[in-house]
Amino acid sequence: MKELNTYEKELLHQVAELDALPVGAYNIRANGASAARNTTAHIDIVTKTDKPGIDIIIKPGTVNESVHIPVIISESGLKDNVYNDFFIGENCDVTIIAGCGIHNCGSGDSQHDGIHTFFVGENSKVRYVEKHYGEGEGRGKRFMNPTTIVHLNRNARMEMETTQIAGIDDTLRKTTADLAEGSSLVIHDKIMTTGDQHAIAEFDADLNGAGSSCNIVSRSVAKENSRQEYTSRLNGNAPCSGHTECDAIIMDHGCVLASPQLTANHVDASLIHEAAIGKIAGEQLMKLMTLGLTEKEAEEQIINGFLK
Amino acid sequence: MKELNTYEKELLHQVAELDALPVGAYNIRANGASAARNTTAHIDIVTKTDKPGIDIIIKPGTVNESVHIPVIISESGLKDNVYNDFFIGENCDVTIIAGCGIHNCGSGDSQHDGIHTFFVGENSKVRYVEKHYGEGEGRGKRFMNPTTIVHLNRNARMEMETTQIAGIDDTLRKTTADLAEGSSLVIHDKIMTTGDQHAIAEFDADLNGAGSSCNIVSRSVAKENSRQEYTSRLNGNAPCSGHTECDAIIMDHGCVLASPQLTANHVDASLIHEAAIGKIAGEQLMKLMTLGLTEKEAEEQIINGFLK
Repeated sequence: MKELNTYEKELLHQVAELDALPVGAYNIRANGASAARNTTAHIDIVTKTDKPGIDIIIKPGTVNESVHIPVIISESGLKDNVYNDFFIGENCDVTIIAGCGIHNCGSGDSQHDGIHTFFVGENSKVRYVEKHYGEGEGRGKRFMNPTTIVHLNRNARMEMETTQIAGIDDTLRKTTADLAEGSSLVIHDKIMTTGDQHAIAEFDADLNGAGSSCNIVSRSVAKENSRQEYTSRLNGNAPCSGHTECDAIIMDHGCVLASPQLTANHVDASLIHEAAIGKIAGEQLMKLMTLGLTEKEAEEQIINGFLK
Repeated sequence: MKELNTYEKELLHQVAELDALPVGAYNIRANGASAARNTTAHIDIVTKTDKPGIDIIIKPGTVNESVHIPVIISESGLKDNVYNDFFIGENCDVTIIAGCGIHNCGSGDSQHDGIHTFFVGENSKVRYVEKHYGEGEGRGKRFMNPTTIVHLNRNARMEMETTQIAGIDDTLRKTTADLAEGSSLVIHDKIMTTGDQHAIAEFDADLNGAGSSCNIVSRSVAKENSRQEYTSRLNGNAPCSGHTECDAIIMDHGCVLASPQLTANHVDASLIHEAAIGKIAGEQLMKLMTLGLTEKEAEEQIINGFLK
């Protein structure tokens, strides 16, 4: 493996909780090139020949294995664009840890656009964890535009945990999914924006198969002058159940726009949405402040609990 | 008053529950012309000179009075377009009953587009009731496109009850409101579509004043091949509270699309949305059927309760 500098090691820790090379399959991409790779008996990683990116091929029946594919960018001004396709066979049970960290201490804008496409085989279960993180005191901005496309075959199940906690100036996060019979998709999305950051999140799910289900839970905090836009579209095209929930805390001059959309195209589609936007409840703050916390500490504790 | 025929009397009954001339101020519009009018010491009704429609001027301090302004159309192929402006002084407490009925037994399409604008004075309270109803076995269609624009001054309160139960082939219902300090708007909207009917409802509210509040509750039933689209946009621009709720029952091949949007532009804006779309719960039907009702009767009873 190419030697990583201190910044790069810190980024790896932030986005993938990696302090050493992981167990199992992995592909570490640093500054637009592959920095380290490992495959296993059941998991192949193949460099694409037509465009930047990799194919991750997981053999049918692979269970209790993991794939780490973190991306780190420490060169200021780098624009990285990558296509990763995941082919997950039948009857698998795997964990995939992605994530991208940008350290920008220069004046050029750094950008990472990752397009991840998942083909999840029948009866397979995938846990997908994705963290986005930025840092660096340079004048250059940090952009990330992740696109996630999920195709769930019969009785497949995917659980996504997506997080953007800090340091991304501008992001457009798109997730689309189509669900076959008996399949299910669960998304837990967490985002916090500060300063003048701007974040757009769009979720689209087509519940095409009988008995399919989708549950999207989004929690967001908008601080200072930051702005967030949340859109979700659930299309119930079969007997199915869908639920989306968007809870947002606004602070300072933060602004949050929530626009969920439900479309029931089938009489046996059952769709529910809830959204709530507001500031931290005064009573909650008071309670913690009577326990000796300052207002700022109390706010932090409440936000950490909210985004946990 | 011009003599009304049987159809016209039935329409008046359906949209305004009028079987005789009402008490208080009224203006009855039939087939694009004024058919009867009454004013009171506190309520003036003046025909507009620049476009079709009337100005309804309610003097400050008018309490416990009502205005009826039903519109009926029995001529097939008539396209009626009317602008009604309501100027409600300070410290009023009045009820305004509007509504439009179309009887179309011919082959031409009948259409009524009513644009109602309300200027509600400080500390005034307005209850506004609007029913839309269509009937007639002609091949001609029945269209209604009501637009309601509400300007609420300080501490004004408006309660709207809008209903479209039957017989409208195509409707675009737009409601926009701006709310000053301490004002409040409550909307109860009910709609049922059948056959190939198509209904679009759009609600926009700008909560501009401190302490303003808006509550929009929409209940809808889409039967057979009908299609409904519901959009609401709440913009919290001040310390305010907003709530929208959209509950829809779908039956047969009915389709409902719900797209509520919340925008918190102020840290002290508290906004909540809930939406649920689904068919009648099986248990509810079973319970009524064990009491001796047929499935159809049980469905009707549940829908009546839901839309009550």
